[in-house]
Amino acid sequence: MKKYIVTISREYGAGGHSIGKRVAEELGIPIYDKDIVKQTAEASGYSPELVESEGEDISRTDSIIRGIVASSVFYSDSQDVIHDVQQAIILKFAQAGPCVIVGRCADEVLRKAGIDGLHVFIYADEERRAVRVGEMLGSSNATEIRRLMSRKDASRHAYYNRYAGKKWGDGRNYHMTLDSGVLGYDLCVKLIVDAAKALDAAPAQVKKGG
Amino acid sequence: MKKYIVTISREYGAGGHSIGKRVAEELGIPIYDKDIVKQTAEASGYSPELVESEGEDISRTDSIIRGIVASSVFYSDSQDVIHDVQQAIILKFAQAGPCVIVGRCADEVLRKAGIDGLHVFIYADEERRAVRVGEMLGSSNATEIRRLMSRKDASRHAYYNRYAGKKWGDGRNYHMTLDSGVLGYDLCVKLIVDAAKALDAAPAQVKKGG
Repeated sequence: MKKYIVTISREYGAGGHSIGKRVAEELGIPIYDKDIVKQTAEASGYSPELVESEGEDISRTDSIIRGIVASSVFYSDSQDVIHDVQQAIILKFAQAGPCVIVGRCADEVLRKAGIDGLHVFIYADEERRAVRVGEMLGSSNATEIRRLMSRKDASRHAYYNRYAGKKWGDGRNYHMTLDSGVLGYDLCVKLIVDAAKALDAAPAQVKKGG
Repeated sequence: MKKYIVTISREYGAGGHSIGKRVAEELGIPIYDKDIVKQTAEASGYSPELVESEGEDISRTDSIIRGIVASSVFYSDSQDVIHDVQQAIILKFAQAGPCVIVGRCADEVLRKAGIDGLHVFIYADEERRAVRVGEMLGSSNATEIRRLMSRKDASRHAYYNRYAGKKWGDGRNYHMTLDSGVLGYDLCVKLIVDAAKALDAAPAQVKKGG
C-alpha cells in the first residue's frame, strides 16, 4: 500500500466524513473532499454545485429528467464527464501521497488503477443516523429526515453500482466495514488508524492483492 | 454488551475460526464451536455428524433430496429441529458469560434474544482463500478447491438467509467486517480484541441498540 491512502464510503448520516477527518488528523495527512469538487469543476467546466450534486449521487429526479430530455447533451453527458474528470483528480491526489478520500467511488477508482489503499465503509442503524441528520439539518421533522436519508442512500447506491459495478455496502467490496452507531466514532477512528499503520508497517501483506 | 461476547461469521477459507480462537485466547474466554455441535446432538437426538453438516449449511444436494423425498420426516424436519435446538444451546452459552461463537447465525440468535454482542464477518478474496483451503485439504487440485469453496459459501449463505432472513456478508448485518486476506490474521485479531475491550469499557454506547 502506498502509505496511508484511506478511502471512506459511507451511508448518509453515519459520520463517515467526521471519522475520515479525524483519521486524517491522527495520521497527519490531508483529507480530500471539497478539493475534489473544486478541481473537478475547474477541469470539467461544470459548476461546483453541479459537481457536488452529480459527483457521487444519481438522484431519481435526475434520472426522470434524463429520460424526458434525452436529447439534451447537458443532462445525458454531465454525470459521465464529471465522473471521468473526478476520477483523474482522485488519482492525482492519490499519486501525490498519503491521504484520506471520502466517497466518490474512490475505492474502485484506486483499485482499477492498481493503487493500493485501505478501503473502509461506515454505516449505522437508521435510528442513530436519523438523530445525526436531524442535528445536521437543524430539523426534528422525522418524515423529512427519513425521506432525505432514503434519497441520499439510494442515489449513492445507484452511483456506486453504475461506476463501480458492485453492490454498495457489501462487506466484500471493502477491507473493513464499521458500524459507527454501535462502535462509536472514537473507536472507528482508532480501528482505521491502527489498520492503516499496521498495513504501512507490513506492505508485503498488501502487495499480494486486494 | 455482556462482556466480550463476540460472534464470528466467515467465508469458507477466510480463517474466521483461527481468528476467533486467537481472539478468545487473548480475551481469556471460551470459544464455542464443537461444544455447540456436541450439545445440540445430545439434546436433539441427531448424530453429531448430521448436526455438523446441517447446523449452518443448506447444501444444494440436500435441497434437491428434500424436494424428491418430501414425505420423509427425516429430511424435511431435521434442519429446523437442529436449528431450534442449536439456538437454545447458543443462548445458554451466551448467557453463561463472555465467549466467542463461530458461525451458526449466532449474531442473529443473540439479536433476536436481545443479547448484545460484537458481531464480526470475516472474508477474503477467492485467491487467498483457495490457497488456505488447499492447505487444509492437502490438495492442489484447483477445480476441486474452487468447487468446495463455492458449495460451502452457497450453503452458508442459504442457511443465513433462511434463519436470519438477511443477506449473508452484507456489511450492515454486522458491527465490523474484515478482509483477512489484505489485513492479515494478526491485525484482524487485534482489531476485534480492541473493539471488544472498548465496547466493554463503554457499555452505554452499545446499550442504545444494534
